[in-house]
Amino acid sequence: MDQAQSFAGKRVLITGGLGFIGSNMARRLADYGAKVTLVDSLIPEYGGSLFNIAGLEDRVLVNIADVRDRHSMAYLVQAQDYLFNLAGQTSHMDSMEDPYTDLEINCLAQLSILEACRQHNPAIKVVFASTRQIYGKPDQLPVNENHLLRPVDVNGINKMAGEWYHILYNNVYGIRATALRLTNTYGPRMRIRDARQTFLGVWIRLLVQGQPFEVWDGQQLRDFSFVDDAVDAMLAAAISEQANGRVFNLGGERAVNLRELADLLIKANGGEGHYEIRSFPANRQRIDIGDYYADYGCIAKTLGWEPRVHLQKGLALTLDFFRQHLQNYL
Amino acid sequence: MDQAQSFAGKRVLITGGLGFIGSNMARRLADYGAKVTLVDSLIPEYGGSLFNIAGLEDRVLVNIADVRDRHSMAYLVQAQDYLFNLAGQTSHMDSMEDPYTDLEINCLAQLSILEACRQHNPAIKVVFASTRQIYGKPDQLPVNENHLLRPVDVNGINKMAGEWYHILYNNVYGIRATALRLTNTYGPRMRIRDARQTFLGVWIRLLVQGQPFEVWDGQQLRDFSFVDDAVDAMLAAAISEQANGRVFNLGGERAVNLRELADLLIKANGGEGHYEIRSFPANRQRIDIGDYYADYGCIAKTLGWEPRVHLQKGLALTLDFFRQHLQNYL
Repeated sequence: MDQAQSFAGKRVLITGGLGFIGSNMARRLADYGAKVTLVDSLIPEYGGSLFNIAGLEDRVLVNIADVRDRHSMAYLVQAQDYLFNLAGQTSHMDSMEDPYTDLEINCLAQLSILEACRQHNPAIKVVFASTRQIYGKPDQLPVNENHLLRPVDVNGINKMAGEWYHILYNNVYGIRATALRLTNTYGPRMRIRDARQTFLGVWIRLLVQGQPFEVWDGQQLRDFSFVDDAVDAMLAAAISEQANGRVFNLGGERAVNLRELADLLIKANGGEGHYEIRSFPANRQRIDIGDYYADYGCIAKTLGWEPRVHLQKGLALTLDFFRQHLQNYL
Repeated sequence: MDQAQSFAGKRVLITGGLGFIGSNMARRLADYGAKVTLVDSLIPEYGGSLFNIAGLEDRVLVNIADVRDRHSMAYLVQAQDYLFNLAGQTSHMDSMEDPYTDLEINCLAQLSILEACRQHNPAIKVVFASTRQIYGKPDQLPVNENHLLRPVDVNGINKMAGEWYHILYNNVYGIRATALRLTNTYGPRMRIRDARQTFLGVWIRLLVQGQPFEVWDGQQLRDFSFVDDAVDAMLAAAISEQANGRVFNLGGERAVNLRELADLLIKANGGEGHYEIRSFPANRQRIDIGDYYADYGCIAKTLGWEPRVHLQKGLALTLDFFRQHLQNYL
């Protein structure tokens, strides 16, 4: 049975559903004939936006609520077949400036969502969006799932706890759950107003606005997932019983350094655009992890997932989207 | 300079200071001439008791407060040289039944204590009582600090986060901190009313009461720290700059299976006493980790610590204490 058939007629809840990845997933699932409910609190600093579901309004249900709202969540998880648990505070800098909010959203709210599932819908399958940030500074590259977790910011610590609550509830209570450790995800509907999701958002905005962007250092290696690939992985994890209780890295088809990435982005922009190399700001240096790229062999082997959209292509698609819709993302 | 000289005249705050390890530490530090403040909330299900500082009342300051009380903690950390951060919810079963309280104490309160240090006393040195529970079921034995963390209960996840906040605040903000992953700690002043600290407490109580105790399974391997050894390790970590930002396992001088332990305990009781072998209860099985014992080579090498009190001797000392003071621990 293919993905589309697996989700046809199924009830799916997406937390952070008006955000970058959530809204792209909602489009896919609506096309598959799923009954999709999007939960989002539209916190201005986060990724949610009603424009992200422009044209989709009649095919999904939108419920404005905060994942920290225990009572609302206890109702919303009921009778759902799948929960894609994407709501989160994603900014590393914000997590250092306001560690309590990060803890509430990435840690406490995750626990209460799982408690709600345990009490009201133990048959649900949950897919949790974790992050490569929890590895911290890698000992060796590429990083696989056996690498120690040594988070370097409050966000990383809380996401690590949030991920483990999911694995625990799978193992102890049989609430089936899979965690995917996402790497830098990019694509249409990403946050470009600031660097809260990824620095690449700011680069894209400035490029589309015809302004130069800054590349810090430039030598650091990173990998990138186009959002459609990330959505593919989540849907694959949702429908696989072999994925229950497992943690998988996502990764890009290759590692690039940030200078190469900047060059690729300008190339994807038809050769237009400029950037400047800057040294790393001090407050970022303290929580920086150096080079990172993932070994995604584990999910490739278990679920047959691999990145399909090459960086050059993905960047071009992303630029196309934001050239058309820039005003809605400023 | 020896330990005693290092602490003479120093101001020391101990959270969980009326508890098992905290009160034993307070006695040692008072003997060393430190100015000791004990913070404890005396939650009945936890380890705190005023009897734990019987005879010591005039040599320490007692401040009843909960570590979740942000304002009180922000005051109490001020002007302290050392913080021994021992307050915690320790029961694995309670953490599953009430995961929110465990999160508040082991996760949120730890973050707020560190924030208090950052804002009001960044020169303080913090020693955090972490736990071997965060390793989960070992891949190989003995377990060293490079073993993956795969906690099997809510308590383990929250303690993992609590530990990492300490390492993070050391690395990012220079709040010097060391985390010690304690194994089963036993000795005078341990909680024996129930198994919330360790099953061994219940064994000791029943033995002193002249009743048979239950040994579950009996084949599992464990290691044990006598409380004086655990206190030694914490004091050594506090005064070592090499320990800053580090995580160390504690461990026992050898691993014993639970049946051997039961036999040793009866031997330490002058050969008096009986036990029965029972199979593992189902609700414990789900969060049990099988065999565990630590490799404590890292702290041995870095701080010169090793366990000094052999199990047989430590059990005898513990039984002596509870024979004298049983009524105060029921």
